[in-house]
Amino acid sequence: MREVFHEKLDRVSNDLVEMTNLVGSAMNRATQSLLDADLHLAESVIAGDSLIDDLAAQVEEDCFQVSARQQPVATDLRIVVAALRISASLERMGDLAAHIAKSARLRYPASAVPVELRPTFQAMGAVAQNVVAKTGAVIATKDVTLAGDVARTDEEMDRLHRELFNTVLSPNWSHGVEAAVDVTLLSRFYERFADHTVTIAKRVAYVATGEPYNSIEPSELGLRVVRDA
Amino acid sequence: MREVFHEKLDRVSNDLVEMTNLVGSAMNRATQSLLDADLHLAESVIAGDSLIDDLAAQVEEDCFQVSARQQPVATDLRIVVAALRISASLERMGDLAAHIAKSARLRYPASAVPVELRPTFQAMGAVAQNVVAKTGAVIATKDVTLAGDVARTDEEMDRLHRELFNTVLSPNWSHGVEAAVDVTLLSRFYERFADHTVTIAKRVAYVATGEPYNSIEPSELGLRVVRDA
Repeated sequence: MREVFHEKLDRVSNDLVEMTNLVGSAMNRATQSLLDADLHLAESVIAGDSLIDDLAAQVEEDCFQVSARQQPVATDLRIVVAALRISASLERMGDLAAHIAKSARLRYPASAVPVELRPTFQAMGAVAQNVVAKTGAVIATKDVTLAGDVARTDEEMDRLHRELFNTVLSPNWSHGVEAAVDVTLLSRFYERFADHTVTIAKRVAYVATGEPYNSIEPSELGLRVVRDA
Repeated sequence: MREVFHEKLDRVSNDLVEMTNLVGSAMNRATQSLLDADLHLAESVIAGDSLIDDLAAQVEEDCFQVSARQQPVATDLRIVVAALRISASLERMGDLAAHIAKSARLRYPASAVPVELRPTFQAMGAVAQNVVAKTGAVIATKDVTLAGDVARTDEEMDRLHRELFNTVLSPNWSHGVEAAVDVTLLSRFYERFADHTVTIAKRVAYVATGEPYNSIEPSELGLRVVRDA
């Protein structure tokens, strides 16, 4: 009975890792569509988001079925609930990638990113790829050490987010208000995308260590305490 | 045994309604601190966010305890999971109110809101109060009709969000890039705040109707399908 339960949980875990693959691919294509003003690529991200939503619904249904049949207690229930929350975060990350693609589509055939900010968004795209890959590894391995690595990678995204504000708010900004508004929101989407990976890593650590979510000190995961202005 | 289970779930429901009170109050004070450049009020919102976090942790612990002891099946499990997700949304809404208060603090003694946008943020604050009060009623009553009302109120927030962009991007905008960046993010915080209430209402409707989350058509709740550019 319990073996069946754990077999089904393994399938849920595999689906969550597959969601990180889809979300990583969506973010990669969203970044390319943004930098190259590639409408076709942007459309593929927007259309593909429903696949991620469907997988989230599948994970949710599997979690309920396994719970209703096996009646998990204590730790097992925490695993099921963690899986549901991780799925919700990954679904939201897919939405954020789609938001970026929609911004690329809105400004097509121009690019929403002024030339001097291309390196920043290229770096944000690379950090997003990096952090989502690590998140997939955290889910697959339940390795709490890797969870700290996710948090440190998120700090790199925060640094890029602040760097972008410095550029936009400097006296040398010559691209006007519309471009400022565009890149502010775009940068916020990347920053929130990475934040979700930290939430996921904390959820995995919580199940692994048994520590309640809020009692995990940010410093344990290498997090900055204050992240938003 | 099942009576104990439902008594405990009632307590969780009460705590969630109390969270909507705290979140509503935080948003009200955040809006006032923004409009009046009131540092004291802003600090009270920022410091008070830990109360909301604590209540979320309390709800989470109660949900686990009630589940571990009573081993809920099917519908009951859905109620517990919905409560956990609603609590997570309310916690995030508290964060968003704190973000607004931090923006007020950052620009103090100036106001982050140019005078011509005061009516828009006043309206956003009023809509936020309205929608969070309705959300409390949805949680307390489980009335799906009220859930539709939440979605319609969210549409009003979306309208204000678009109106703000029109103002910022018009040729008459005279407040420069920094103010544009500030009000863009602030408006986004209000919009996300209201989005979370729709998520909560959908969660309540899902438990009440038994329909899986993703199969509730946006039109049933009066939602716009595309909300982000």
